[in-house]
Amino acid sequence: MTQLEQARTGIITPAMQKVAQVERIDPELLCARIAEGSVVIPLNNKHPNINPVGIGKGLSIKVNANFGTSGDQANLEEELLKLRAAIDAKADTIMDLSTGGDITRIRRAIIEESSVPVGTVPIYQAAIKAVQTEGGIIHMTPDMIFEAIEEHARDGVDFMTIHAGVTLPALERLRYQGRITDIVSRGGAFLATWMLYHKRENPLYEMFDRLLSVAREYDITLSLGDGLRPGSLSDATDRAQIQELLTLGELAQKAWSAGVQVMIEGPGHVPLDQVEAQVVLQKKLCREAPFYVLGPLVTDIAAGYDHIACAIGGALAGMAGADFLCYVTPSEHLKLPSVEDVREGVIAARIAAHAADIARGNKNAIDLDIEMSRARKDLNWEKQISLAIDPVKARKYRSGSKPSSNEVCTMCGEFCAIKIVKDYFGSQ
Amino acid sequence: MTQLEQARTGIITPAMQKVAQVERIDPELLCARIAEGSVVIPLNNKHPNINPVGIGKGLSIKVNANFGTSGDQANLEEELLKLRAAIDAKADTIMDLSTGGDITRIRRAIIEESSVPVGTVPIYQAAIKAVQTEGGIIHMTPDMIFEAIEEHARDGVDFMTIHAGVTLPALERLRYQGRITDIVSRGGAFLATWMLYHKRENPLYEMFDRLLSVAREYDITLSLGDGLRPGSLSDATDRAQIQELLTLGELAQKAWSAGVQVMIEGPGHVPLDQVEAQVVLQKKLCREAPFYVLGPLVTDIAAGYDHIACAIGGALAGMAGADFLCYVTPSEHLKLPSVEDVREGVIAARIAAHAADIARGNKNAIDLDIEMSRARKDLNWEKQISLAIDPVKARKYRSGSKPSSNEVCTMCGEFCAIKIVKDYFGSQ
Repeated sequence: MTQLEQARTGIITPAMQKVAQVERIDPELLCARIAEGSVVIPLNNKHPNINPVGIGKGLSIKVNANFGTSGDQANLEEELLKLRAAIDAKADTIMDLSTGGDITRIRRAIIEESSVPVGTVPIYQAAIKAVQTEGGIIHMTPDMIFEAIEEHARDGVDFMTIHAGVTLPALERLRYQGRITDIVSRGGAFLATWMLYHKRENPLYEMFDRLLSVAREYDITLSLGDGLRPGSLSDATDRAQIQELLTLGELAQKAWSAGVQVMIEGPGHVPLDQVEAQVVLQKKLCREAPFYVLGPLVTDIAAGYDHIACAIGGALAGMAGADFLCYVTPSEHLKLPSVEDVREGVIAARIAAHAADIARGNKNAIDLDIEMSRARKDLNWEKQISLAIDPVKARKYRSGSKPSSNEVCTMCGEFCAIKIVKDYFGSQ
Repeated sequence: MTQLEQARTGIITPAMQKVAQVERIDPELLCARIAEGSVVIPLNNKHPNINPVGIGKGLSIKVNANFGTSGDQANLEEELLKLRAAIDAKADTIMDLSTGGDITRIRRAIIEESSVPVGTVPIYQAAIKAVQTEGGIIHMTPDMIFEAIEEHARDGVDFMTIHAGVTLPALERLRYQGRITDIVSRGGAFLATWMLYHKRENPLYEMFDRLLSVAREYDITLSLGDGLRPGSLSDATDRAQIQELLTLGELAQKAWSAGVQVMIEGPGHVPLDQVEAQVVLQKKLCREAPFYVLGPLVTDIAAGYDHIACAIGGALAGMAGADFLCYVTPSEHLKLPSVEDVREGVIAARIAAHAADIARGNKNAIDLDIEMSRARKDLNWEKQISLAIDPVKARKYRSGSKPSSNEVCTMCGEFCAIKIVKDYFGSQ
C-alpha cells in the first residue's frame, strides 16, 4: 500500500511518525492530511535509506535543488559535488535533470549517494534515446516514455515530473493566446513537438492509468509538471497556463482515486502582483494538492541574479500557501550551475521559505529568529554565526574583517547601537 | 524658494522637467504631487551638478546605497571606490554614513564626486565630536547637533536623516513595551542615551523649527528617521515603533507648512506578513509622504545574505506603495561592506524595485522585461546580456561556460526548449 492508501485506513507509517516529529505536528493530523491529499511524503518503496520529507499543508515549506548534466557539460563527479553542496546547504530534496553523458549511471550514482528524496523527469531520457537512436524527438514512442518511467521507478526515484497536462486542446489554446516565449519547459517542448508532428494526444495524458499503476507500485509521488508554464512575465496567468492547470487538477483527482500521491508544479515567470492569485487558483483548482513552484521569478531581466528574483517570488508564493520551492541559481538563463551556484541557490530559496514560514506562523521558524535576535542583543557572535542560515559564509565575513573590539563588528565599530544601548541602558 | 514652494505656485522647475521626462509623467501632475508632498526631489540648492531624482507617488521606485567609514575601517579611497561601484550599479542616490577618520573630508570628497543625490546623518558627526572632544555621547549639546546639520547643509547634502521622532514619550513606550533588540539605529541610540541621561527631550524634536529653517534655506529634503525601528522580527509593528511613526507624521506636516520637502524612513526587520500593513500605516499616518524603507528584512537569520532577505521585503513593500528602498549588503550584521558587497547590494535592491515597479504597472519597467523576453525567444544572446540588470555579470557567466552552439547555453545544450520550439514550430 502507498502512504496515501495507508493513511486512508488510519495507519501511521514510520515515515509519517518521523515527519510529524520533525514538524512538531500531531501524527494523526498529518495522517489525515496525507489521506486527503494535501500532504505528500515522496518516498519510493525501493529507496528506504533516506530521511522522509513531508510536503504540504501545515508543514514547513521545503526547498528543492535541481542539477544534472547537459550535452555541453557532463561530468558525474561535478554533479556529485553539487549533490553534496545542495545537501550541505540543507536542500530538502534534489532533482537530477541530467540530459548529457551516461544519464542512467549518473542517476543511479546520485540516488545511491543522496540522503534526501530524489526527483527526476523521465521524459528527458525518452527524448534523448529518440534523438540518439532514431535521430529526432519525433521518433520517440509512448513505450520509450513508459520504459524510462519504469526504469526510474526501479532505480528508486521518489518523485517524478510528468507533463501530462500538455494536451492538444491546451496547445491549441496556446496558439490562439499568442505568447512571447511559447514553451520554456524542456519536457513540454519535447511533448509538444511530438504531438504536433504526429497530430496525436500526449501519451502521458492518454495513458495516465498506465502511469498510475507504476506510481502506485513504487509509491512514487507524481509531480504534475507545467509544460506550458510562462517563460516571461507577459505570458503569466494566460489561458494556456490555466487550461493546463485545470487538466492537472483533474489528473490529481485521478491519482488520488488510484491511491497515488501527487503534487502540482507551478511557474515560472510571474509578476509579483499575480503570485498570490496563482497560488489561490492552484489550491482551488487542484483541491489543495501540494504546490511546487519553480521560482516564481518576478522579473525577466535578473540573469546572473535569478536566485534573488526567485527568492522574492518564492517568499510571496510561500506566504500565499505554496508548499515546495524549487530553487533557481545565479546561473539560470546563462549556463549550467556550478557547485557554488548550487549552494547560493539553495540558501536563497531557504531564506524565502523561512520568511514565508514565519509569515505563516510556523513556530520552529519563529523561534529561530528570536534566538538569533537574543544572540544579537547579547553581542554573542559565536551564537550569531551558528544560528545564521549559512554559518560558513557568516564566519568567513566576520573573520575577514576584524573589529577592534570583539563585542562589535567593523560596520559601526565603537558606535554599535546595540553596544551603546547595552552600556548605557544596561546599567540603569 | 524650495521645490515644494515653487510647486505650490505652479512653477515647473528645470529639475521637475527632467524628472518628468525620465519618468514619462506629465510635468504638471508631477508638480502637483510635489506641492501636496507625495513626491520629493532631494536637491540641495548648493549642489547643482547632479541629476535630479524624483521619489514618491507614481514614480519608479528608487534605490539608495549606504556606505562610509567606521572607526575600525576608515579609508577614503575605499569609500570612493564604493561610491563608483554604487553608481556603476545604478543606485539612484547614495548616503555617506561615515563615523571613522576625517569624516568632514570624506563627506566633501563624496559630494564632490557623486553624480547622484547625497544623503547623510548629521547626528553621527555631533556624537563623534562629543566623544572625541568631551569624552562621551552624553556631552553632546544641541548646538553641536545643529552645527553638524548646518555644516552638512553648506557642503551640499541633498537629504538628511533626522531622528526627531525619538521622543521621551516614545522611549517610555519602548520601555513598557519590552523588546528583544531595544534600539538598533545608531542615531536613535545616540539620542536616547543623551535624553535618558539628561532627562531632556530630543533637541531635534524640541527645536524642529530651527531645523526647518536650515532645510528651507538649502532646500534639503528631510528624511525623518526611525530611531526606534525594529531590529528583530519580534519587535516589528510594536507600540514604540508606531508611536514614533505618529510623531513623524506630525513633523512631516510641520515641514510642509514651512515649505520643506520631507520623506519618512521605515524599518528594518519586519515579518513578511506585516510588510504591507507597515506601508499602509505609513501612507495613512503621514499623509502620503514618500516612504523610504531600510529593507525590510524578512528574517533575522540571513547574515551573509541579508541583501536577499532585504530584496524580498523591499519588493513587497514596493508593491504595497513604498517609494524608496535602502539597500542592504551581504555584509550587513557582520562587517563594513566591501566594494563588491556594495555592487551586490545595489543590484539586489534594484531587482526588488523593478519587480515592484512591474507589479505597480510602471510601463518603463514592463517594457524592459518584454524586450528581454523577445531577445530570449530569438536566442539573441548579445541583446539578453545588454538588457540584463547587470550586464557585466551576465557576460561573465555566459563567457565562462561556452556552449557547443552559439544559439543555446550550457544549461540545456541541444535540448534548449526555446530552440526546439523555434526549430519545430517556427517552420510550421
